[in-house]
Amino acid sequence: MALYLTEAEIGELLTMPDVLESLEDMFRARARGEIVNRPRVRVPITAGTYNVMPAGWIERGVVGHKMYTASAKGASFQIVLYAADGSGLLAVMGGGRISGLRTGAVTGIAARHLAARPGGPIAVVGAGFQATAQVNGLVAATGATDIRVHARSADKREGFALRMAESTGVDVHAVDSIDAALDGATVVVTITNSAEPVLRVEHLRPGLTIVAAGNNTWLRSEIDPAVIGRADLVVVDDIDNAKVEAGELMRAAEAGLFNWDCAVALHDVIGGTRAGRTSADQVVLVELQGIGIEDVAVAELAYRRARERGVGLELPA
Amino acid sequence: MALYLTEAEIGELLTMPDVLESLEDMFRARARGEIVNRPRVRVPITAGTYNVMPAGWIERGVVGHKMYTASAKGASFQIVLYAADGSGLLAVMGGGRISGLRTGAVTGIAARHLAARPGGPIAVVGAGFQATAQVNGLVAATGATDIRVHARSADKREGFALRMAESTGVDVHAVDSIDAALDGATVVVTITNSAEPVLRVEHLRPGLTIVAAGNNTWLRSEIDPAVIGRADLVVVDDIDNAKVEAGELMRAAEAGLFNWDCAVALHDVIGGTRAGRTSADQVVLVELQGIGIEDVAVAELAYRRARERGVGLELPA
Repeated sequence: MALYLTEAEIGELLTMPDVLESLEDMFRARARGEIVNRPRVRVPITAGTYNVMPAGWIERGVVGHKMYTASAKGASFQIVLYAADGSGLLAVMGGGRISGLRTGAVTGIAARHLAARPGGPIAVVGAGFQATAQVNGLVAATGATDIRVHARSADKREGFALRMAESTGVDVHAVDSIDAALDGATVVVTITNSAEPVLRVEHLRPGLTIVAAGNNTWLRSEIDPAVIGRADLVVVDDIDNAKVEAGELMRAAEAGLFNWDCAVALHDVIGGTRAGRTSADQVVLVELQGIGIEDVAVAELAYRRARERGVGLELPA
Repeated sequence: MALYLTEAEIGELLTMPDVLESLEDMFRARARGEIVNRPRVRVPITAGTYNVMPAGWIERGVVGHKMYTASAKGASFQIVLYAADGSGLLAVMGGGRISGLRTGAVTGIAARHLAARPGGPIAVVGAGFQATAQVNGLVAATGATDIRVHARSADKREGFALRMAESTGVDVHAVDSIDAALDGATVVVTITNSAEPVLRVEHLRPGLTIVAAGNNTWLRSEIDPAVIGRADLVVVDDIDNAKVEAGELMRAAEAGLFNWDCAVALHDVIGGTRAGRTSADQVVLVELQGIGIEDVAVAELAYRRARERGVGLELPA
């Protein structure tokens, strides 16, 4: 019988360190060619989209997808797992918490593998819903102890910094400009829904790693196309998916500032099949749209834990 | 809260006439441009595939998909529905019974709209699992009273014909060759898993409508490519999907016997936006791979009925 898990149950089953380990394993498996990931399928709904992100990790015994509606009414996420041996449905579970955790974890993993100085100061641009998991992922993955947060609203960034300093135990503080956030930072993480670029060429300095994780529609751009033209290395979570969703890269490619053949997949950097950063002076840009296998890999961990601990509702056949 | 429905519950909620009406409505809506359907996404698993078929019918308030594994271990089908207004998950349900019903219903609908003489004798080639719903769909949709069944195994075809004659109350009888099945038939329906063509040019006669519904992988062919070269009209359930799954048509197109630009979508025939059969002498070929919106449309009916009747398990949020 298949298992149904609520968001609250998943919250009890997973921690950020678990998620980091599961995703590192997955990226290395993907570099060995053991993963299948399909680009997100989008179907229009009223004022939004319905999205399905199929993927499989046969060695771990699972195939499945995240599915969600995202619209003016908010988002509703679920994840489904099937047995990769063909024996049927394994689980249906809430996918909101896993989406947040895995996005934060992948951001942390990217920062760890591509920062000129892992553990150095990190600038975070954006203080919305997803920023919490970004900071948690960055702290857990890189060991950073200096996190600077900038967001347009002073109240929002100050409240966010206070909460995160308390929950992480490291120095998270609000700053009143992107320049102040970037001062001495090794990594900058953007996590906005901005349609207009928040990071521009004048913000760049040698050695900076930029992780853009704030949107997955080509309509929006957090990064100015000129920044992409100046990057020494562009890393994406999935090349096929980035070609239809990474608005910044799509615009830069149209403008002749970027060549898709130069894009490197994150799993190839992590697995060592492609070079990542090769000098401390390089500007590295990481564009994360989020891919189905990240959800499936973390859901597999939640499912395994739930079975071990007897958590969840058995669905009648 | 979302609803979970078992296969047994769905069996109580749906009848073939309901399914026929729901699908006729859907095809007319699709001809008006009110439907979104995405080609099946396939992910390899051990000795099989995992499949996801997203689709939406916003006017009916639903978006969703069928999902299933099909492998050496058999098949396991589920269907998911979300609210098209973005308010979240509506239902998760067994998808096996709906798959069978809708395939039979679409076959019946295609026969009704494209037969030279609706209600005339029908030949069925194949007596396996799906043949039951094919006969039920054909009888309910066309009013046929003479159904001839051929399958390679005499025991299998005789047993099948007896069972179907009893359950439908019409003359369903087994015959020992495809030629005997075709003698005087207006429509021939193939429902096999054959990799080798079962229907060849020598079987054709003026006015025959062929409905091929037996497989959805380009590796298999029920129909000889030469048959396609002789067809006056080729109808498919979805042109984009047929281009990657309808092995017969793909082979015929490669051989120069068929031009994709001539393919007509079934919904355009039903909705009257494209001509179907224009004379009683034409040979018409209908290739059905099965598409996600057929599952979503029938699942929407099951969901609506379940809510009206208080059937199903409420899933905790």
